[in-house]
Amino acid sequence: MSETAKKYKIAVIPGDGIGKEVTPWAQKALEKAAEGVAEFEYEKFDLGAERYLRDGAILPEDEEERIKKTDAILLGAVGDPRIKAGILERGLLLKLRFDLDQYVNLRPSKLYKGVTSPLANPGDIDFVVVREGTEGLYCGAGGAVRRGTPNEVATEVSINTAYGVERVVRYAFQLAMKRRKHVTLVHKKNVLINAGDMWQRIVDKVAEEYPEVTHDYLHIDATTIFLVSNPSRFDVILTDNLFGDIITDEAGAVVGGVGYSASGCINASDEYPSMFEPIHGSAPDIAGQNKANPTAAILSAAMLLEHLGFDDAAKKIHTAVEADIEELGSTTRSTDEVGRDILARM
Amino acid sequence: MSETAKKYKIAVIPGDGIGKEVTPWAQKALEKAAEGVAEFEYEKFDLGAERYLRDGAILPEDEEERIKKTDAILLGAVGDPRIKAGILERGLLLKLRFDLDQYVNLRPSKLYKGVTSPLANPGDIDFVVVREGTEGLYCGAGGAVRRGTPNEVATEVSINTAYGVERVVRYAFQLAMKRRKHVTLVHKKNVLINAGDMWQRIVDKVAEEYPEVTHDYLHIDATTIFLVSNPSRFDVILTDNLFGDIITDEAGAVVGGVGYSASGCINASDEYPSMFEPIHGSAPDIAGQNKANPTAAILSAAMLLEHLGFDDAAKKIHTAVEADIEELGSTTRSTDEVGRDILARM
Ligand SMILES: CC(C)[C@H](C(=O)O)[C@@H](O)C(=O)O
Ligand SMILES: CC(C)[C@H](C(=O)O)[C@@H](O)C(=O)O
Repeated sequence: MSETAKKYKIAVIPGDGIGKEVTPWAQKALEKAAEGVAEFEYEKFDLGAERYLRDGAILPEDEEERIKKTDAILLGAVGDPRIKAGILERGLLLKLRFDLDQYVNLRPSKLYKGVTSPLANPGDIDFVVVREGTEGLYCGAGGAVRRGTPNEVATEVSINTAYGVERVVRYAFQLAMKRRKHVTLVHKKNVLINAGDMWQRIVDKVAEEYPEVTHDYLHIDATTIFLVSNPSRFDVILTDNLFGDIITDEAGAVVGGVGYSASGCINASDEYPSMFEPIHGSAPDIAGQNKANPTAAILSAAMLLEHLGFDDAAKKIHTAVEADIEELGSTTRSTDEVGRDILARM
Repeated sequence: MSETAKKYKIAVIPGDGIGKEVTPWAQKALEKAAEGVAEFEYEKFDLGAERYLRDGAILPEDEEERIKKTDAILLGAVGDPRIKAGILERGLLLKLRFDLDQYVNLRPSKLYKGVTSPLANPGDIDFVVVREGTEGLYCGAGGAVRRGTPNEVATEVSINTAYGVERVVRYAFQLAMKRRKHVTLVHKKNVLINAGDMWQRIVDKVAEEYPEVTHDYLHIDATTIFLVSNPSRFDVILTDNLFGDIITDEAGAVVGGVGYSASGCINASDEYPSMFEPIHGSAPDIAGQNKANPTAAILSAAMLLEHLGFDDAAKKIHTAVEADIEELGSTTRSTDEVGRDILARM
């Protein structure tokens, strides 16, 4: 290890199911890619469905405090069908995003050579969704009266602030400057006129600071059409929390499955650690069988490296993954085989 | 005209752009299909972007009252890029859906033989989305403070009632009984826990009355994946106003374009007229060129006939449309040619 290597503390949350199988490969890729430039110390956290089923804990305060003190988080996947929807999502995943103010949810979609898209003519797909991560309908500001009666009323409230929107809009334009310089705002401003109008005004204002970046607007419904009919039209898609959730899954499908997609929950002000994860879930049906593809987890390690400023190290992972998929993407391999193959190329 | 033919009054709102070109074909198909069993009298309403740009009127009260007194509404398409987003949507389209209590937004998706899907292996696609039409985020219950300042806060509120949900859930199960007997509830109950939980409870309760109908649940994000990876898994999709808006556009893309999709805004209690329309927009880029495909508008006439109870007449349209698409769907024809070809087969 070089004397000049910077040291980082990484929180590792393997989680449940295949999360536990793919996360070690993300760590190995991280190590190998950063050899000589960065040194990682890991702190493992036993959080997720298994922990909850065992002792009822979701995210104990002291553990969250320790997570907050790390430099970045690697997450596998969390979830188990035995647990009622919402408990782990709201108590663990979203709680981390909100408490750690991870306001940029960054989700690249790329169709790798060697991957078969479900689209007949996919074209070149390479875009990034910048999803707001700390506001909108995800803030948990709903309620219900007369629950379980014929007079029940249930509400969900989307809270959107100029402060929260402006910072993520600025991030999207900065990102566009490093890419093909085009931002598409996605919303439903013809119906959600309060939030939509604010998003559009802030985009128009921030856009003036980036005269080289062009921008346009699409309704969320039209976006789902273009993702199928012409996904190569997109460079940077900028959108709110819920719309971002929806289109990144569709985008994952269009690039041949969520097995090749990673994501970052980023606190771009570096006040708290950012979190990196594959976008697939814990997949209980194939868990423990050494079948899960670790590629998305390995790509999440590359995003972590980019976030810490190690672009060259991240590039090593990307190059290895691209070569692996192009050559062997269509073969059936075990988790460990894919992991070893990718590492061997690095 | 047979002496026993029932008489109906139809409000016709051709609207803007290609709406004015395709609506006459919907009327002609209606006439021809219902020959001998129903007689229609039309009242034309000049509503939409052109009217608004001319005299500022969106939906004058007396015109709405006259619309309310008809038996059904045929709508073309409404919209013009010169008008700020939200004005016609909220003032005309959504106002009619809400004031006329059109709580079932019915949107069939079918991949016709002869139509090329953008999917490489689409399979047999034939499902119906039952979208709630009078609640959720569409109710306009948002607001904003400190507009235009760095301290702006904008909200959007989704209001959901057991009354409103139960009636549309029941409609979906009844529809499933006439089809392949499967209902998929689509929501985001792991995040929108108040509304999602209420939808799920009501579905579970109503499902008990329909023991022959199976039902499952999918998150909205997962749904966008299945619509691309395995759309034939769906029979009846049941969902809220916003999610329904989103997935029906994706579904339209998957079945080869919105040119083949019609929709009904249905007041299933028949207190007010229901409204039928193609799901495409006014398409100003091709308006006035006799280029628009009238098939979706003609299919909306079939939905109107079904709604009034003329299943055989509706079937005539479906059969003619299916034969036309299979034989000539890939040829380039004018609006009038397609219209004539379909009518000739009826
Ligand atoms: C698990 C769930 C809360 C989460 C979300 O909705 O954000 C997931 O779907 C995602 O996209 O990361
Ligand atoms: C025009 C708009 C208000 C409308 C909606 O969002 O419902 C449209 O997208 C639709 O799906 O009918």
